[in-house]
Amino acid sequence: MARPLRVAFYGAGQVSRNAAEILRRRPGIEVLGPFGRGERDAALGSGADVVVIATTSFLSDVADDVRDAVEAGSNVITTAEEAAYPWANDAAAADRLDALARSRGVTILGAGLNPGFAFDALVLTACGVVPEVESLLVERVVDVSGFGETVLRRIGVGHSPESFEEGRRAGTVTGHIGFPQSMQVVAARLGVAIERIDRELDPIFAEQGLAASSLVVNPGETAGFRQRYAAVSDGRLWFEALFTAHVSPQAIGQEPRDAITIRGPHGGVNMAVVPGMNPQSGSASIVANSVRRVVVAAPGWTTVADLPPAVPR
Amino acid sequence: MARPLRVAFYGAGQVSRNAAEILRRRPGIEVLGPFGRGERDAALGSGADVVVIATTSFLSDVADDVRDAVEAGSNVITTAEEAAYPWANDAAAADRLDALARSRGVTILGAGLNPGFAFDALVLTACGVVPEVESLLVERVVDVSGFGETVLRRIGVGHSPESFEEGRRAGTVTGHIGFPQSMQVVAARLGVAIERIDRELDPIFAEQGLAASSLVVNPGETAGFRQRYAAVSDGRLWFEALFTAHVSPQAIGQEPRDAITIRGPHGGVNMAVVPGMNPQSGSASIVANSVRRVVVAAPGWTTVADLPPAVPR
Repeated sequence: MARPLRVAFYGAGQVSRNAAEILRRRPGIEVLGPFGRGERDAALGSGADVVVIATTSFLSDVADDVRDAVEAGSNVITTAEEAAYPWANDAAAADRLDALARSRGVTILGAGLNPGFAFDALVLTACGVVPEVESLLVERVVDVSGFGETVLRRIGVGHSPESFEEGRRAGTVTGHIGFPQSMQVVAARLGVAIERIDRELDPIFAEQGLAASSLVVNPGETAGFRQRYAAVSDGRLWFEALFTAHVSPQAIGQEPRDAITIRGPHGGVNMAVVPGMNPQSGSASIVANSVRRVVVAAPGWTTVADLPPAVPR
Repeated sequence: MARPLRVAFYGAGQVSRNAAEILRRRPGIEVLGPFGRGERDAALGSGADVVVIATTSFLSDVADDVRDAVEAGSNVITTAEEAAYPWANDAAAADRLDALARSRGVTILGAGLNPGFAFDALVLTACGVVPEVESLLVERVVDVSGFGETVLRRIGVGHSPESFEEGRRAGTVTGHIGFPQSMQVVAARLGVAIERIDRELDPIFAEQGLAASSLVVNPGETAGFRQRYAAVSDGRLWFEALFTAHVSPQAIGQEPRDAITIRGPHGGVNMAVVPGMNPQSGSASIVANSVRRVVVAAPGWTTVADLPPAVPR
C-alpha cells in the first residue's frame, strides 16, 4: 500500500480547521496540525507532502513562511488572497519564490473560493465553450453572518458611517480581498493585458438590528458592503466584478448567488449557482480538494488557471 | 517571434470547419485543412503540432488515424465521443496508443462539449466546492434543429415509431453517444468504481410537422428523444444523466439548458446554464480552445479530468 499523503496545516483559524477535518475523513491522507502561530517550526519544518498556510490575506505576511516550507521540501497551498496571483503585489518576491520552488521540485498555489474559484477558475472553465471572450461579468452575493468578528470588522461590517469611512481611507477596512488577483489570473491565461482596475467599496447600513454569529449590527451601522472592480483593457471594460456581502442578504432583498456572464459570439454563456457557493465550506473544500493536484503539478508558483479541477478525493 | 502553432484538421464536417475558422482568427496559429477523407496523408502525416481528427464517433474507427498522427509526431485531439475515455470501449487499444504517445512525447485527448465538458469537465470543476460527492445529477436539453440529416437520423430524429424501434434494436439509432465515457472520466478522477450503467432511450413524437435545417419531421415521426443514463456505485445511484434532444424544445415545453446538481454536505451545488450551451459553437470552441492545453500536457492519452481549462486563446 502506498504511504499516506502527509498534509500539515499552519494557522488554526476556521479554514484550516475545516479543511483539516475534511481531509481527516479521506483514506490515504494523514493530517498534521492545525498548528497555531506558536508552533511555526512544527508546521513549516514538517517536510509534509503539502503544507497549508492559512494565516493572513497578505503576500508580504506569508512570503517567509512559504519560503521556509518550500526549503523543507514541501508543496505549499496558501489561502492568502494575494497569493492567488502574487505577481500583482510583489513580482520580485513571486519570482524569487517561484525559482526556489522549481529548484526544490515543489509547487506553490494560492487557493480558495474567492480568489481561486468563483471569479477565476470557474470563469475560465466556462470560457471553454465560447470562441472568444468579449467581456466578463461576475456577480456574487454572500451571506457573511457566519464569519468571525475580526474578519467582519476588517472587511467592513459592524461600523458606524464614520468608522467605515475612516477605515476605508486608512486601509483597515478593506472589503473582500482578491478581485484584482482573480482578474489577473484570468487575464494572464486569456492573454489579455489589463490597463487598470477601478475599485469601489460602499457601505450598506442596517435599517434594523441584525445579529451575525460573532457580533450584533445596530441600526445605522454597516451590515454589509458592495464592491465593484472593473478591469479595463484596450480602453474598454473587460472584466467587471460585483460583490455584495451582508450579514442578512434577505434584509436587502437579495439571496446568496453566483452568476457568470461571458459575452461573446453565439450568445456567450450565462451561468448561475443558486444558492451561492457557501463561503465557509466552499473555501475549506477547495483547499482540501487542491492537495492532490498540487502534489502532481509542475514545480514553481502556479495558479488555478494552469491546474486541473480540484476534486474531493 | 515564436513560430506559429500548426494545427491540421482531418475530417471536413461541421465541427472541423467551425473549429478551423475559430483558430484562423487567432494570432500565432496556422491552420492546415480541413482535409477530407481523400486527403488522409496530408492531415495525419503533416507532423503538425496538433492534428484534430473529427470524423466519426467510434474509437475503433479512429484508432488507426490516431496512431498514424502520433507516429508522425503530432499531438492529437479527436472529437470521437468514445475517445473521451477510451478504456471504456477497448482498454487494450487505449493502453497501446497511450504507450505510443508517451514514447513519442505527445498527448492524445478526446475533446468536445458532450462528452468533454457538459457531463464531465464542468461537473468536476463544480465538485471543487464540496467536501464530498454523495451523488450527481446532470440534465441537458438541446435544440438539435441545426444538425445535419445523417447525424439526426443516427441519433434518432425523423423516424417512424417502427423505424426508431428497429434502429434502436439494431444499434443504428444510438441517441447521443458519450454518456458512459463522461461518467467514467468523472468516476476515475473521484476514485469511484462504477458497477453498471443503466441506459434508456425513448422517442419523442411530433404532434405537428416541425422543420429542422436539414429535414422535416412529419406528425407522428420522432422529433427528438430522451436518454437516461444511471451509473450505480456501491449498490446505489451515483451519477444520473438526463438528456433531451429535440428539433423544437419549445414544442414540448422545454428550453435548452444545462443543469448540474451535486448532492453533498452543506447543500451541495446547484448550477445552471440558461440558455443551454450551444451544441455547435460549443463543440467547435472546446476543440479550438483545447489546442494550446494539449501541446503542453504530459505525454500519453489524457482526459479532460487531468487538464486545466480549455480557454479561447
